[in-house]
Amino acid sequence: MSAGTVYLVGAGPGAPDLLTVRAARLLERADIVFHDALVHPDTLALAARAKHVAVGKRCGQLSTAQRFINKQLVDAARRHAVVVRLKGGDPMLFGRAQEEIDALRAAGIAVEVVPGVSAGFAASSGLLQSLTQRGVSRSVVFLTPRVGEGEQSHDWALPAANADTGVLYMSGRQADLISQGLQRAGLPASHPAVFVESASLRGERVLPTRVGDLAATAAQLSAGPALLLIGAVYEGIVAQAERGSEEMRRTA
Amino acid sequence: MSAGTVYLVGAGPGAPDLLTVRAARLLERADIVFHDALVHPDTLALAARAKHVAVGKRCGQLSTAQRFINKQLVDAARRHAVVVRLKGGDPMLFGRAQEEIDALRAAGIAVEVVPGVSAGFAASSGLLQSLTQRGVSRSVVFLTPRVGEGEQSHDWALPAANADTGVLYMSGRQADLISQGLQRAGLPASHPAVFVESASLRGERVLPTRVGDLAATAAQLSAGPALLLIGAVYEGIVAQAERGSEEMRRTA
Repeated sequence: MSAGTVYLVGAGPGAPDLLTVRAARLLERADIVFHDALVHPDTLALAARAKHVAVGKRCGQLSTAQRFINKQLVDAARRHAVVVRLKGGDPMLFGRAQEEIDALRAAGIAVEVVPGVSAGFAASSGLLQSLTQRGVSRSVVFLTPRVGEGEQSHDWALPAANADTGVLYMSGRQADLISQGLQRAGLPASHPAVFVESASLRGERVLPTRVGDLAATAAQLSAGPALLLIGAVYEGIVAQAERGSEEMRRTA
Repeated sequence: MSAGTVYLVGAGPGAPDLLTVRAARLLERADIVFHDALVHPDTLALAARAKHVAVGKRCGQLSTAQRFINKQLVDAARRHAVVVRLKGGDPMLFGRAQEEIDALRAAGIAVEVVPGVSAGFAASSGLLQSLTQRGVSRSVVFLTPRVGEGEQSHDWALPAANADTGVLYMSGRQADLISQGLQRAGLPASHPAVFVESASLRGERVLPTRVGDLAATAAQLSAGPALLLIGAVYEGIVAQAERGSEEMRRTA
């Protein structure tokens, strides 16, 4: 039996025009699109002739849900030529792509991956602050904090303490535990940090802070996806925001 | 005097269709494009009405060269409405963007950054191997090895030893020193590694290896840009390549 190809496609950080040209062309050709909850409606609209299936879930996905998605993709490839699995950002970074790739290959289905712009890069563009910077940062780590779920270890934070710049995805919740974890891993409370919510989207918000103050700052976040940037490269942004707040207090 | 805007634009990993839609539209509108040496000719061709200025240099750039680029960008913004500075990958990761952003802002020139797909993501797509993987990798560090230039310290390698997955840019040369640095930072010689040369381009090559064998493997690289992926997520790819070599030896 001949089968189609499943394309795992990065939808980019949010703004529809931050999709790659290859991804846009694939969406136009797609017969069916399985997409995450956070993909922009204008991006989905490119898949004009495709059936759209929302399979998105944010934090706390169950492995049974993943197995169901895997099965849906295999079944779709047996009925359609061009199956697109559209994931926010880049599929290979926090996208749980490997389960889907492995399930498809085990079923003999052809798989291709189309990379995308991850949110950390869009956030950096919006800030006009490079992740790496001569004399300040030569290394950048991307990670998700492992807090909650009864997790007591702070090992998750060690890579962030050992790299010059850190980009922490899914960091809008439990910021008190994230702050504790980073400090136990060796970062000072004064270490510069910036929350960026809804990077690249109209509602993008930038909240400069410091590692010791994450909980108070996170309380100002709305419901959009948030990431946390940390590192000496952000000292200028944080210090400028602090001078601004000081100025506002003096003139109030 | 009114001035134009300088757009620092990510050209993506190499393949022209891995450019973002926003970048493609900006190139079409550009009056002048300053580009790195490694940008694909078909990508440059999108800037059909623009003057093209090659400012690329690979490893070993002098700060005077950077200051000259900064000056060229400022001067161009005073004569043109849409100035594009096109950089390989994403501008904010190993793109030396900050010098240009700071120089432009100091000169009162408007700056915008358009993110792009970095080569590590394209390499991961080609390998069908996710950078993160449940139960195996929760953190990914991007860095450039600091070898040569009389550099004796192996501190550069510590972030790679402390993250689950490492993506080392500009790693095709001095692989013996990179191997030493990674091992002194604590990684075993048996740690899985994959060189990917010319990710996303027609000449893409994948060379699975192990941290102890980097020098012998790097000797097989050609002249394309090479990055080195390391981490337990690559064990399957490396083991499969080793079984293939063993098979070839037995049947020879």
